[in-house]
Amino acid sequence: MIRRAILSETLGSLLLFATVIGSGIMAERLAGGNVAIALLGNTLATGAILFVLITMLGPVSGAHLNPIVSLVMRLRGHISTTVAIAYVAAQLFGGVLGVWLAHLMFDAPVLQLAHKVRTGPGQWTGEAVATFGLILTILGTAKMRPEHIPASVALYITAAYWFTSSTSFANPAITIARSLSDSFAGIAPSSVPGFVVAQIVGALAAHVVAGSLFPEHRAKAI
Amino acid sequence: MIRRAILSETLGSLLLFATVIGSGIMAERLAGGNVAIALLGNTLATGAILFVLITMLGPVSGAHLNPIVSLVMRLRGHISTTVAIAYVAAQLFGGVLGVWLAHLMFDAPVLQLAHKVRTGPGQWTGEAVATFGLILTILGTAKMRPEHIPASVALYITAAYWFTSSTSFANPAITIARSLSDSFAGIAPSSVPGFVVAQIVGALAAHVVAGSLFPEHRAKAI
Amino acid sequence: MIRRAILSETLGSLLLFATVIGSGIMAERLAGGNVAIALLGNTLATGAILFVLITMLGPVSGAHLNPIVSLVMRLRGHISTTVAIAYVAAQLFGGVLGVWLAHLMFDAPVLQLAHKVRTGPGQWTGEAVATFGLILTILGTAKMRPEHIPASVALYITAAYWFTSSTSFANPAITIARSLSDSFAGIAPSSVPGFVVAQIVGALAAHVVAGSLFPEHRAKAI
Amino acid sequence: MIRRAILSETLGSLLLFATVIGSGIMAERLAGGNVAIALLGNTLATGAILFVLITMLGPVSGAHLNPIVSLVMRLRGHISTTVAIAYVAAQLFGGVLGVWLAHLMFDAPVLQLAHKVRTGPGQWTGEAVATFGLILTILGTAKMRPEHIPASVALYITAAYWFTSSTSFANPAITIARSLSDSFAGIAPSSVPGFVVAQIVGALAAHVVAGSLFPEHRAKAI
Repeated sequence: MIRRAILSETLGSLLLFATVIGSGIMAERLAGGNVAIALLGNTLATGAILFVLITMLGPVSGAHLNPIVSLVMRLRGHISTTVAIAYVAAQLFGGVLGVWLAHLMFDAPVLQLAHKVRTGPGQWTGEAVATFGLILTILGTAKMRPEHIPASVALYITAAYWFTSSTSFANPAITIARSLSDSFAGIAPSSVPGFVVAQIVGALAAHVVAGSLFPEHRAKAI
Repeated sequence: MIRRAILSETLGSLLLFATVIGSGIMAERLAGGNVAIALLGNTLATGAILFVLITMLGPVSGAHLNPIVSLVMRLRGHISTTVAIAYVAAQLFGGVLGVWLAHLMFDAPVLQLAHKVRTGPGQWTGEAVATFGLILTILGTAKMRPEHIPASVALYITAAYWFTSSTSFANPAITIARSLSDSFAGIAPSSVPGFVVAQIVGALAAHVVAGSLFPEHRAKAI
Repeated sequence: MIRRAILSETLGSLLLFATVIGSGIMAERLAGGNVAIALLGNTLATGAILFVLITMLGPVSGAHLNPIVSLVMRLRGHISTTVAIAYVAAQLFGGVLGVWLAHLMFDAPVLQLAHKVRTGPGQWTGEAVATFGLILTILGTAKMRPEHIPASVALYITAAYWFTSSTSFANPAITIARSLSDSFAGIAPSSVPGFVVAQIVGALAAHVVAGSLFPEHRAKAI
Repeated sequence: MIRRAILSETLGSLLLFATVIGSGIMAERLAGGNVAIALLGNTLATGAILFVLITMLGPVSGAHLNPIVSLVMRLRGHISTTVAIAYVAAQLFGGVLGVWLAHLMFDAPVLQLAHKVRTGPGQWTGEAVATFGLILTILGTAKMRPEHIPASVALYITAAYWFTSSTSFANPAITIARSLSDSFAGIAPSSVPGFVVAQIVGALAAHVVAGSLFPEHRAKAI
């Protein structure tokens, strides 16, 4: 069972990260310099693959595909420390492979380092808000209408690509992986720590707020 | 229970309004002057977050996120006057915070006043139609297929951003909050009263029509 | 019951046609001459409102909103001739009001005649194919997975706006109503008869094919 | 029963391929040279029609609409060799008719040969990845949440049009059919064999991986 779950997190992260990077490259190449059009393509692909992956991998591993999610699930006692560590390793390993696969597909050098600096209080606030919203969505939807988790997570990221100034990484593994791609979705390695700290802050805030907002058992609407 | 519902309306309005304003800023900055492309991004983000918020907050507070909805629910006896007043206060408070948060994320001055004048019979007709359709959608879907309320409200607003001349505010709290943002989604304070009156007219019309159109108990299709 | 159904067809057609015309005007005004971007906005709005209207009005009147659908339902014995005639009258009446409402919202002259000529074997083939697919989708989905009719009809029209050369009117009432709007979605009155004949041909073909393709009772997948 | 299934695969492939080609022609004609906008229209139409077709034809024939899917279903013992061969013939026959129908609708010469060369290791990797993901999605979703197969396949292709360098043909019948259209979605006949080999490699890999990843019976999430 755990072997299958690790495979699920690895393969899911590989496909998710290949989609984020690959659709970013495709969109930038085709958009003729209009960044909004490129972001539309990038958003559509990312939201769509999230629904697909969470629908089929959710029952296998929970489809965390994100170390922050595994951390929060550990904090809430849903998984053990061992599983959490194995998940994070699988997400990083699969995710980096996914980035390299995207480079291979688009005839780009496999090994790259991003140069796009993403820093400053605005971007960090963006990342904290993005991750707060993501974790709140996961915890709230899981408690209230768990059958809608795939659609809600996909649509949350769809919105967050546009409403946060950082275009919503909200995932330390994807932040690290995107530092290995000098493309539309890239982030300079020096900008990674700021993003990860902001993500942890946002996630912990959501963990606390979800305790007040969502009851242990599903409540009836007023 | 009521404390949780107030928190739900506050936080939901905060995230909704931050999305409307934030995605408008992002879209305008990236779209290179093509307003239709900017509106596509703004629409996509708004529709997506509505599904997410109503799905998880609907069971907690009804996810009104809109004083007009709370007013109609009061008129129909679904909530008390006290709850209605508390909801409206929460929506305004959370919503304004959401606008300011969007400004923070995008490194814009927190305190702003909009200069975009939106007025005249065409725009007011647009707002009345937009709000009529929104309230009809909520009342009709709640009676006929309540499980589809999140998707139907999200898709209604998606359509109304495009088919009404006012781009469908359909929400007095968001109208006031958007007067505090001199950006894509802004509205000059002097244009607010006209919009709110039109919204109330449209909502009352929908309240009346829904009484004739939707039976007390779910009818079978002919 | 029948009064309520007539109201449903009238109001539904009004909102649907106002959306088709209104979003076309909005899209054309904002798109800066790029017709593909305008069609994206027009498509998004039309697909979205179809889901909303069919979800809430389907249980009231079947949400035909289209004389061709009422005709086929009459042919298959699902409604009486009297109801079919009343529905068609309601669709035409509500639909024309919807077009005029769109003009009012966008500060355009209420009474217009379209000048956009849409004619020729390619366009007629497009209309026949569009209507064939629409009727097949309705009949097939109703038999196989009726709970998905709102999503399937909305997504069918979303696709057909793009894959048919006529951008898929597939509805005689909307064809007539669109001849009263000299805007993005308009059609010259002289082009209306050709479109309506093609729609009838496509619908009758789907009516016949559906008899072979979909069994009276839901079959198991091979 | 089998006659009905063959009709389903023929008609489904006809409508699917007409959509892929037709929306490509429409998008290219309207997009004013911006290929990203054209791909948005092409993606929207293809994803939408996939949901529609799989929803209504899935219960009739499984809605393979793709020789690779029929091959994998044969490998897994879900259909007989006879049915597999009949399905592939129906997909090719219907698919080519669909391409010609698209040409008719858009007043283009019916008989064409594509000139767009699509070749090289990057494109082949793209096709292998695209087909791997498609087959994994079908097998995994069928085992875990079969009710979501129409949405998941539609959204997978939506993502894959953007994240793979080949824009995801992932279907030998559509690859052959698209070689008969010198338009946006075309592929030069000389590029077909490379694509088909890559598709088979990707599909077989998914067939193997799915055996490890998805248990015979639905597992509970960790």
